[in-house]
Amino acid sequence: MNAYPKTGKNRIRQAPQRAAYDEKTVHAILDEGYIAHIAFMDEDAPAIIPINYVRDGHQILIHGSRKARIFRRLACGIPLSLAVTHLDALVMARSAFNHSMNYRSVILHSSAHILEGEDKAKALDLMVDRLEEGRSKLARPTNKSEDKATMVLAIPIENVSAKQRRGGPVDDKEDMDLPIWAGIIPIETRLGEPEQDPGQ
Amino acid sequence: MNAYPKTGKNRIRQAPQRAAYDEKTVHAILDEGYIAHIAFMDEDAPAIIPINYVRDGHQILIHGSRKARIFRRLACGIPLSLAVTHLDALVMARSAFNHSMNYRSVILHSSAHILEGEDKAKALDLMVDRLEEGRSKLARPTNKSEDKATMVLAIPIENVSAKQRRGGPVDDKEDMDLPIWAGIIPIETRLGEPEQDPGQ
Repeated sequence: MNAYPKTGKNRIRQAPQRAAYDEKTVHAILDEGYIAHIAFMDEDAPAIIPINYVRDGHQILIHGSRKARIFRRLACGIPLSLAVTHLDALVMARSAFNHSMNYRSVILHSSAHILEGEDKAKALDLMVDRLEEGRSKLARPTNKSEDKATMVLAIPIENVSAKQRRGGPVDDKEDMDLPIWAGIIPIETRLGEPEQDPGQ
Repeated sequence: MNAYPKTGKNRIRQAPQRAAYDEKTVHAILDEGYIAHIAFMDEDAPAIIPINYVRDGHQILIHGSRKARIFRRLACGIPLSLAVTHLDALVMARSAFNHSMNYRSVILHSSAHILEGEDKAKALDLMVDRLEEGRSKLARPTNKSEDKATMVLAIPIENVSAKQRRGGPVDDKEDMDLPIWAGIIPIETRLGEPEQDPGQ
């Protein structure tokens, strides 16, 4: 099983039994999401942005306006940390203390670089195809002025770790007979019924 | 309508027509979420963590293990940035360029401080009640050793902004008759059927 190397930056110290570093786990979590959060330093203060992304092999692709100050800052290759998190269930325990949540998350430490030319065009196609398979071949292609207005950044997947919690509550033995319902409440996320644009 | 003050740190420059600073909008977005992402500096590099939270008035409450290095670091009151993001729909346009997403997000710049005594106890009750109303009165209360192991932090809501996109695709006039489906695909998130713990 291919795995991302453990480095000083991605070894999980808190609850290490929940950690994973293999590509299969990391990629599956990344491939299920649409929005990542990116942390970086902006004018001497930590900043965070939510952003749409797609995974392509061992890198994460994002795109935005070439005019956006934050995007230009990331394009300089400054250090960043990126997270993708899925919340799967609320975990209801018998004791207040043992309440928890089931989740799957990926965190990585990396930096971004600009893609141009064919790499950029391919990345933009992938972003559209992530919304609907094959859609990049149906939509009106990006024209020159749109291409000029858009910046595409690639973020290599490195210093990466996954973390997951599954299963029901873990209560203390002496709490097991308390008269309170315990279990999990799943959080369900799905695509709903498409709503056609009235302009059509 | 009460609003959070605009400061140098929260004025939205990119797509300002999507920004909001009023308490009602900010609080509604915060109250719908369970997981926030927090950005901060950790050993000279930007770090990010996903974390469960609850809003209480004009502050956000989080809790974690007193042993967790990252939690102890946040407790020092270092600058942090926090984001809560809801993805509402994929927006399918006629042109590749105009694809988008509908979302609601809150971003703030603040710092954390430790809660103790009654404030801490009240915060822990709120965290449990967020999972099920009134549950803090039913669950076995936190005992002394559990309380000692837990740290509760409050993060004042300040330098805060909300940002939202709603509605269908905004296509160019000359693309409106292209033979491609356009509209939105809603993303639905809901609580599923509770699954009782077999231990009971």
